[in-house]
Amino acid sequence: MTRFVGSLLWRNLRVYQIYGANTDVGKTVFTTALCKAARRLYRDELTGYLKPVSTGPGHEADEHHITKYTQGVLSATLHQYDLAISPHAAAVGKAIPKDADLLSSIYSHLVQAAGSGNTSPDGWFFIETAGGVHSPGPSGTSQAELYRPLRCPVLLVGDGKLGGISTTISAFEALTLRGYDVEAVLLFEDDLYRNAEYLRTYFSDRHRGVSVVSVPAPPSKNEASIKGRDEEDEDAESMRRYYDETSHSDAVQGLLAHLEGRHSARVARLESLASEGHNKIWWPFTQQKLLSPDKITAIDSAHGDFFQTLRPPNLPEENQKRSSSEKEPLLQASFDGSASWWTQGLGHANSSLTLAAAYASGRYGHVMFAEAIHEPALALAETLLQGMHRSDYYSSRLSRVFYSDDGSTGVETALKMALRAARRRYGWPVDSKLGIIGLEGAYHGDTIGAMDCADPSAYNEKVEWYEGKGVWFRPPRVICRGGTWHIDVPAEFDAGGEEASGEAKLHSAFESLTHVFDFRKREGRGEHLIYEAHVESVLRHHLDKGRRFGALLMEPVVLGAGGMVLVDPLFQRALVNVVRRSQHLFSPEAVAPPTTDETDWTGLPVIFDEVFTGLYRLGRFTASSFLGLGADVSVHAKLLTGGLVPLCATLASESIFRAFASDDKTDALLHGHSYTAHPVGCQVALESLRQMRDMESSGRWAPFQSGWVIESDNDDADAVAGRSNRAPEHGCWSIWSRKTVNWLSHRPSVAGVWTLGSVLAIHLATSPGGGGYTSMAAVALRDALRATNRGEAQNPWNVHSRVLGNVLYLMGSQTTGPEVVREMEELLKRHLR
Amino acid sequence: MTRFVGSLLWRNLRVYQIYGANTDVGKTVFTTALCKAARRLYRDELTGYLKPVSTGPGHEADEHHITKYTQGVLSATLHQYDLAISPHAAAVGKAIPKDADLLSSIYSHLVQAAGSGNTSPDGWFFIETAGGVHSPGPSGTSQAELYRPLRCPVLLVGDGKLGGISTTISAFEALTLRGYDVEAVLLFEDDLYRNAEYLRTYFSDRHRGVSVVSVPAPPSKNEASIKGRDEEDEDAESMRRYYDETSHSDAVQGLLAHLEGRHSARVARLESLASEGHNKIWWPFTQQKLLSPDKITAIDSAHGDFFQTLRPPNLPEENQKRSSSEKEPLLQASFDGSASWWTQGLGHANSSLTLAAAYASGRYGHVMFAEAIHEPALALAETLLQGMHRSDYYSSRLSRVFYSDDGSTGVETALKMALRAARRRYGWPVDSKLGIIGLEGAYHGDTIGAMDCADPSAYNEKVEWYEGKGVWFRPPRVICRGGTWHIDVPAEFDAGGEEASGEAKLHSAFESLTHVFDFRKREGRGEHLIYEAHVESVLRHHLDKGRRFGALLMEPVVLGAGGMVLVDPLFQRALVNVVRRSQHLFSPEAVAPPTTDETDWTGLPVIFDEVFTGLYRLGRFTASSFLGLGADVSVHAKLLTGGLVPLCATLASESIFRAFASDDKTDALLHGHSYTAHPVGCQVALESLRQMRDMESSGRWAPFQSGWVIESDNDDADAVAGRSNRAPEHGCWSIWSRKTVNWLSHRPSVAGVWTLGSVLAIHLATSPGGGGYTSMAAVALRDALRATNRGEAQNPWNVHSRVLGNVLYLMGSQTTGPEVVREMEELLKRHLR
Repeated sequence: MTRFVGSLLWRNLRVYQIYGANTDVGKTVFTTALCKAARRLYRDELTGYLKPVSTGPGHEADEHHITKYTQGVLSATLHQYDLAISPHAAAVGKAIPKDADLLSSIYSHLVQAAGSGNTSPDGWFFIETAGGVHSPGPSGTSQAELYRPLRCPVLLVGDGKLGGISTTISAFEALTLRGYDVEAVLLFEDDLYRNAEYLRTYFSDRHRGVSVVSVPAPPSKNEASIKGRDEEDEDAESMRRYYDETSHSDAVQGLLAHLEGRHSARVARLESLASEGHNKIWWPFTQQKLLSPDKITAIDSAHGDFFQTLRPPNLPEENQKRSSSEKEPLLQASFDGSASWWTQGLGHANSSLTLAAAYASGRYGHVMFAEAIHEPALALAETLLQGMHRSDYYSSRLSRVFYSDDGSTGVETALKMALRAARRRYGWPVDSKLGIIGLEGAYHGDTIGAMDCADPSAYNEKVEWYEGKGVWFRPPRVICRGGTWHIDVPAEFDAGGEEASGEAKLHSAFESLTHVFDFRKREGRGEHLIYEAHVESVLRHHLDKGRRFGALLMEPVVLGAGGMVLVDPLFQRALVNVVRRSQHLFSPEAVAPPTTDETDWTGLPVIFDEVFTGLYRLGRFTASSFLGLGADVSVHAKLLTGGLVPLCATLASESIFRAFASDDKTDALLHGHSYTAHPVGCQVALESLRQMRDMESSGRWAPFQSGWVIESDNDDADAVAGRSNRAPEHGCWSIWSRKTVNWLSHRPSVAGVWTLGSVLAIHLATSPGGGGYTSMAAVALRDALRATNRGEAQNPWNVHSRVLGNVLYLMGSQTTGPEVVREMEELLKRHLR
Repeated sequence: MTRFVGSLLWRNLRVYQIYGANTDVGKTVFTTALCKAARRLYRDELTGYLKPVSTGPGHEADEHHITKYTQGVLSATLHQYDLAISPHAAAVGKAIPKDADLLSSIYSHLVQAAGSGNTSPDGWFFIETAGGVHSPGPSGTSQAELYRPLRCPVLLVGDGKLGGISTTISAFEALTLRGYDVEAVLLFEDDLYRNAEYLRTYFSDRHRGVSVVSVPAPPSKNEASIKGRDEEDEDAESMRRYYDETSHSDAVQGLLAHLEGRHSARVARLESLASEGHNKIWWPFTQQKLLSPDKITAIDSAHGDFFQTLRPPNLPEENQKRSSSEKEPLLQASFDGSASWWTQGLGHANSSLTLAAAYASGRYGHVMFAEAIHEPALALAETLLQGMHRSDYYSSRLSRVFYSDDGSTGVETALKMALRAARRRYGWPVDSKLGIIGLEGAYHGDTIGAMDCADPSAYNEKVEWYEGKGVWFRPPRVICRGGTWHIDVPAEFDAGGEEASGEAKLHSAFESLTHVFDFRKREGRGEHLIYEAHVESVLRHHLDKGRRFGALLMEPVVLGAGGMVLVDPLFQRALVNVVRRSQHLFSPEAVAPPTTDETDWTGLPVIFDEVFTGLYRLGRFTASSFLGLGADVSVHAKLLTGGLVPLCATLASESIFRAFASDDKTDALLHGHSYTAHPVGCQVALESLRQMRDMESSGRWAPFQSGWVIESDNDDADAVAGRSNRAPEHGCWSIWSRKTVNWLSHRPSVAGVWTLGSVLAIHLATSPGGGGYTSMAAVALRDALRATNRGEAQNPWNVHSRVLGNVLYLMGSQTTGPEVVREMEELLKRHLR
């Protein structure tokens, strides 16, 4: 039994799922007619029928109806419940298959049928659902949700009766918003209601790919409730005639031809996506000269943690007979190991996010935001501000929300805010060359202003208008090697640091990551004094050279795109603390204003770029909580919308906001995008934050957290697991297991490894000088993970991951379950022996 | 009868629309029970019932059922059709009300009820639909679509029978994706199917605001088909008992209490949106010190061309009795006169766009794009490239599509592309100070790189990192004054221009805008030579001073945010032509490479920023067609997604693309956003472009175009109306009428006016020096348009417009119909006498 099923697609086996607009609309009748027509028109091919879940008396099961009226259909029923009610109710007290197991049985059944013996794999396969689209399956999950990972094209049997226009369109929409392709709507003709006529126009106006096919209704059965054999024979005979006529009809034959054409077109298009894209697309961050079409991943759909990707054609050395490769499925499940460039938090195709987006679209579309307000924008602002305030770790200064479209524009906004606040307070002229204080290896986005906030690197040094505007501290890094957590401190810290701080000494090895974050102990030992002394000496040096700074900008805890570097949080604390208490290092001549309120910024405004690290990526709402202090401006994107649409929120304190207050309009923050605070994004973000906070409060992550409890320290254990009132001020946990991290940290091929929240970063050992963005060191591991497991040709799945120089990282979403993570860990271990 | 109805919201009159999951699920029964309970519990208040469209024999109409079993309900039926079939079918051959008229009657009916005589306006009102949510109204429009502008909160009557779980959830989703708030799901209990139990869990898990209320089913009627009076009496008596019990039940009474609470909360929240936003939101481009909450527009929803906005509280001088103001509706229709900051092309809450977004969300969510491909991204790239190629006006050079999130990031990408191409060809070092050639008054976005592409202005000169990097040509402007189209040429053009071009003279007055675009005639007269001479002399001057340029960047035809300036297109042609033929002005030392292909760039890469002007804003797919030449790089956003979510496409030629080809990864275009090519945006853009191109080809805009036909020039007339094979190379049309533009151009308060496509720009006369972004000149007109028409207190609507300095512009969407435009023109005329 495979755990990660692919969508059902073969080159020549055309698989459809039959859904109904309601119960009793004729799914089985249409399926029988289709099977009969397929048997006649495609005599040499397979015709298959599957009823995954059947309810009602076994002898009346739909499968029997099919076989009674057609010959040569490969038919099966997987689960039979004898009560004629909804499967979830009929299954009560019976063996209830789990959703995943039900999918696996269907998948295996199809794989077997497609590859069975000498039978040609060409043909037709119809999978009939029970009741309507949202009728619950045995577990209670709506069928439209339950079967979605298989994403078969759908034949929707509509309702020809009074009210049937409505239920048919609603059912179509329920399927469409779950990403199904409805190929055709089938329904019985009715001279009075003429639903078919209406629906034909409706669908051709709006959804051109959907054909509406109608046939006469079947003959009504003899009404007598207890029938003699004669009546039964009569019924059967008239049904037989009906099927003969119907399966011969232009409507049904035309439908099969239509479907065959659509299927071929779908396969051909899917197989040409990579090469067409190769000719027309300009990919981000990609050297296309080095990219051949076979390296491009064609994504047919996605669900949960997995893409459905086109399997690469067989390699020459595995040259098999055509017939065998034709039997193999075209798609495979691919674990989305970069969480779709760090955006994906709640599973692909999460229907609650879809419905949130659709609701906002249906209620507003986009509405202009300047000097206007709408509910989702305000509610999201409140949720974000409250989320930052709720922290037990520090007191938030943030009280204002500015919306933009992505992390890069959000950082530019933050920068404009902070620079203006500093310039205004210190009375610097507008043309002052204001720099920022940042970290070496930082990354804040790709627009010029955001690029200028990072030190020169492979990312930016060849970009024409790039001009790094700052001073960059090389940060001490945390990494696990040989089971121990080390802090690698750059050499320059030795210079002034230790003497200035007297007795203090930096500890460089820790038993656990949680100990690294134990500021109480570390500051008790005075370790921060070394960092603070270094920071002060560097800043004084720049002051002496006449440089001016307008902000401290950094990614708290982790430098993401800059190479997946876990920064010593004690250093970031020290940096912030020095900047906040040291106006004399920035504007010695200025008189410090009386601080009217404790949320006022001092020294310089501090910006946290939480685009990558925030919103539960590292296990907590805000990454700043790991540092135990909050920013004056903070930037939030990526997980904000759970992996659906772009949106960014820049949060600021009132003290920053006030710097723009003036009687002159042009003193305002002159920044704004057309789609600022677009309702779809705000509504999706609200739903996304709701789901993540629910997961946090409901203990959804407890199975992961329990593995990270430090046994010798019960306080911490309770805190991590949320069982204690005490703030878990240095509790760290990850979805990746401690055991695996420990194992990895002992591999000779691994230079070091760290994990936190959903991130696992494996720094691979390289030859000296071979690291950095341009390194190809981790590529081999990535390719190995991506290669289909050829041992399971019928059941393939793989891992789609990304590398950053010599780092291969794997990142789950916030909904990734233990069973998936463990599987990925096993795979990693297989390739890193 | 009002044309633009508000959504139905009063402070104390609680209005609900009753929808059914299917026909025959008990809508009337529930409504009767609710009316009965309301009559008892809220005895002093109004209880109203309205059946807008009733089918079936008149004496059996639902209204009669209501009045038979409850007393004191103000009840009415608007349209009665005697056949018991769907309204659209029943209405065949009868008087069919137009959708807009049906809405108006309902609105008027409610307004009258709310304001009627001495009756308190407090109370309940139930509007019952016919059949299921998507059952067609008399005109054939689905009811869920038809009634959407009224956006009443919904009570959804679910289906308790077999299959009813499915139809109930589907119906809920159909309503949700149209932006309805479903307040409760009501259904009959059934011991066998227990749908209520399932649905209660389902909705509380997913949609916490939706309560599920179930009551016992009504007694079944006597089955005899022809009933005696006794049976009827018996039926009636048992129904009476049933209603007594049901209306007394906790379920129904609890529901009313719940609804009352939700209604009050909704009104309170709506009324606090502005002040809460004022405290928490940081608005784009807004000096918040000058913004009081009463100036903030609270948008409750939007549909088509209209927002639904909260009406301002009555002004003191209009102090009326409380009771009267309470009778007035809280919401009004507000024409979205800035097309929601220039994004909105297809009407707010366009359900086809919603469904496109939902489909992509359900099929993919977001999927990472680097080195990957998915169908919507490729299909959109193909559609855009084909749209640019299809032009009859010039040959497109564009063959590559790069995706980003908004116009600003798209311009930054374009800039990186063009600068690299120039630098690489001409062998300039990476640290060269490369400028751009642009227009004075240009605007390309708010990120630093995009800001640096504009000349110093109120938009940027106070921004700390802004540094204008270019040379800016002041463009000749086109404007209509006193019925004549003038070209205002800046003084500096006189200098070298005329002598260099010999006999040529610029015509400065034209009979029509179409004549301004008649390059054949104007170039025939040599007018362009004056422009070209000026451009050459300026560029030579900069060359002599050692300046280097990397690109020409401009908005074709119209400078949008820079003040709604219509630029003389002949000048833009001249500028491009000089740049393309004059490598000697940019890199005299370089040897021109052999042009391998006519799509290669020459001189400098030319970037068109079509973010504002493209995609039918000016009436054509691409604004470059107005210039008769194409760009090497062009940027498209705003209308791209029809007004739903942010997305930008930067298109480039192969010659630009090749400049990044290298064996070094870091020579790639190092730009990319996490949500690059997000499927939701791409799918929505595809649907949006499909709809706009359909409108173009189906002649949807013919009513507008016909008014702009130049009578003396039949060729042009045919071309404008698309009736000729000849390219309408200088055909211009607008949704705003020629007559109105002419009228406006004669007003003393108007300095000039122009229109093209959906844009109408009115440059108001100001005192000398009072223009520009900071001017308050047009504000008075804007405020006048925004003020509610107090003469129609019960039927208010207004216009939400934006100003740019002394310019007030009105902008329709691409779906705005003539009746709306004419109404706006009338309003304008009233205020500009």
